[in-house]
Amino acid sequence: MSGICGNVLVTGSNRGLGLELVRQLAESPSPPLQIFAGCRDPNGPRAQDLRELAQKHQNIIIIKLDTSSEASISEASKAIGPKLKDGCLNLLINNAGVNIPGALADTGEKEMVDVFVTNVVGPMLIAKEFLPYLQKAASQSVQHTGMSCRKSAVINVSTLLSSIEKCHETFTMAPMYPYRASKAALNMLTRCLAEDFKKDGILVMALHPGWVKTDMGGPQAPLLVVDSAKGMLKVISSLTEKDTGTLLDWEGKSIPW
Amino acid sequence: MSGICGNVLVTGSNRGLGLELVRQLAESPSPPLQIFAGCRDPNGPRAQDLRELAQKHQNIIIIKLDTSSEASISEASKAIGPKLKDGCLNLLINNAGVNIPGALADTGEKEMVDVFVTNVVGPMLIAKEFLPYLQKAASQSVQHTGMSCRKSAVINVSTLLSSIEKCHETFTMAPMYPYRASKAALNMLTRCLAEDFKKDGILVMALHPGWVKTDMGGPQAPLLVVDSAKGMLKVISSLTEKDTGTLLDWEGKSIPW
Ligand SMILES: NC(=O)c1ccc[n+]([C@@H]2O[C@H](COP(=O)([O-])OP(=O)(O)OC[C@H]3O[C@@H](n4cnc5c(N)ncnc54)[C@H](OP(=O)(O)O)[C@@H]3O)[C@@H](O)[C@H]2O)c1
Ligand SMILES: NC(=O)c1ccc[n+]([C@@H]2O[C@H](COP(=O)([O-])OP(=O)(O)OC[C@H]3O[C@@H](n4cnc5c(N)ncnc54)[C@H](OP(=O)(O)O)[C@@H]3O)[C@@H](O)[C@H]2O)c1
Repeated sequence: MSGICGNVLVTGSNRGLGLELVRQLAESPSPPLQIFAGCRDPNGPRAQDLRELAQKHQNIIIIKLDTSSEASISEASKAIGPKLKDGCLNLLINNAGVNIPGALADTGEKEMVDVFVTNVVGPMLIAKEFLPYLQKAASQSVQHTGMSCRKSAVINVSTLLSSIEKCHETFTMAPMYPYRASKAALNMLTRCLAEDFKKDGILVMALHPGWVKTDMGGPQAPLLVVDSAKGMLKVISSLTEKDTGTLLDWEGKSIPW
Repeated sequence: MSGICGNVLVTGSNRGLGLELVRQLAESPSPPLQIFAGCRDPNGPRAQDLRELAQKHQNIIIIKLDTSSEASISEASKAIGPKLKDGCLNLLINNAGVNIPGALADTGEKEMVDVFVTNVVGPMLIAKEFLPYLQKAASQSVQHTGMSCRKSAVINVSTLLSSIEKCHETFTMAPMYPYRASKAALNMLTRCLAEDFKKDGILVMALHPGWVKTDMGGPQAPLLVVDSAKGMLKVISSLTEKDTGTLLDWEGKSIPW
């Protein structure tokens, strides 16, 4: 159903959207071969739901991965690499992200840098670290022409609030300087990676999940996690070459930069 | 001629575009009252040209200002505040910026964060620190209606390479991950500040100087510093309310986000 096969890595998958993406992938009628579920504290209380899910599905492999740490990213790649069937990673979903209250008065260097490191530097280092596996997946998927998530793709989870164009519509209800600056930078990273990885046949795009009822989205968010994740997976599985370097929402609609 | 009056602060003004902006402002037939020329090492050899310029123009006041340091920004504000005629700052030009070779292979957390701190966090903290003086300038300029640089304005020096939309046109010749990510984030900051400061009547916009023969632009750049600075000052002096929250180039042309 999901149309997503091969080997998948989802970061920040112990709760919120990441956990639901892993769940829906695992429960799909034709699930991916392997789902690597990144999480910074696999043995802690916050990973309980993920551990229970992994007990039910043999293809879920929990991986310790703190996306704000260069060392942890490199460790995770060393752990995942030898486990990858054929050495191929077909789909990387950079989902882990943070937000903090971010009015100008509350924002200093520390707030700006911390959010930037998790939301931008992490996805960049992960894409770089897993590039050999993404390349291998792209070159080995001879049965698939063009670009797609069945071949090799990187999805960066962005947000409507990343849109510089739409800032005037959303600013008053969500000032969030560190988050907005980081996600605009993530969009630029997405576009740069899309250009860089084009020669390898790796698709790279940014995806807005909608405003979703998670710890981050809050209880007043209109969208259920299950519906957002369903929409995201539908969009991801239908991506083609023309979508590389774009920013889409969970319904496949384009968002201006 | 420049149409820029009152009190002005230019960061990174010991060489390149910053130095030329200060020179042209000082030499204009109707120069600003005071030009605060920020520079991180006012007594060092790199500030020699600025010191010589300041000896010729009484309205140039050299200020120690390292834009990558919260402490230095706060010190500079303490030094400038009491010197400001009427406590007003009419125009802040966030010009200081850095670039580094930035292909993916050369880019790690340190490169991403260092460039982000100078190019984004610095301009944000400076705008925040000088906000009371910008507000005072806006509220006291009763003779000027609407927004303008004669009243109160913040100019963030951005770049064509900040454009996510145009990334595919420019990426191959200038990959520059840290610089591009930082300047896209600077554009978002510009837009957020424009929304935030609207109620105070403070104009905020981002300005691309063109590709200019400076240490950063390199010798193959097509544009002379003198022509870029002249264009920038012409654009700055003609800004009105409709330009707040925009990205323009040195000829006044709009650049897509
Ligand atoms: N919810 C929304 O309305 C909404 C809207 C637009 C975009 N988004 C984006 O969607 C993504 C997921 O958001 P969400 O709503 O699911 O947020 P959430 O409920 O706050 O969950 C965030 C997830 O990211 C993980 N994470 C954060 N920092 C990490 C790090 N350094 N290393 C590893 N994992 C880390 C968290 O793990 P821990 O439990 O260890 O903290 C958690 O699993 C984010 O990128 C967010 O920006 C969400
Ligand atoms: N040249 C171009 O083609 C071009 C194109 C697009 C945009 N821009 C932008 O235009 C602005 C000026 O560039 P430029 O070409 O004049 O560059 P430049 O020749 O390299 O000069 C950069 C200036 O910024 C200062 N600076 C850097 N970091 C600083 C810090 N932490 N604190 C204080 N000052 C600092 C430098 O001072 P030090 O001497 O102390 O290093 C120098 O005065 C930058 O924002 C740049 O991104 C330039």
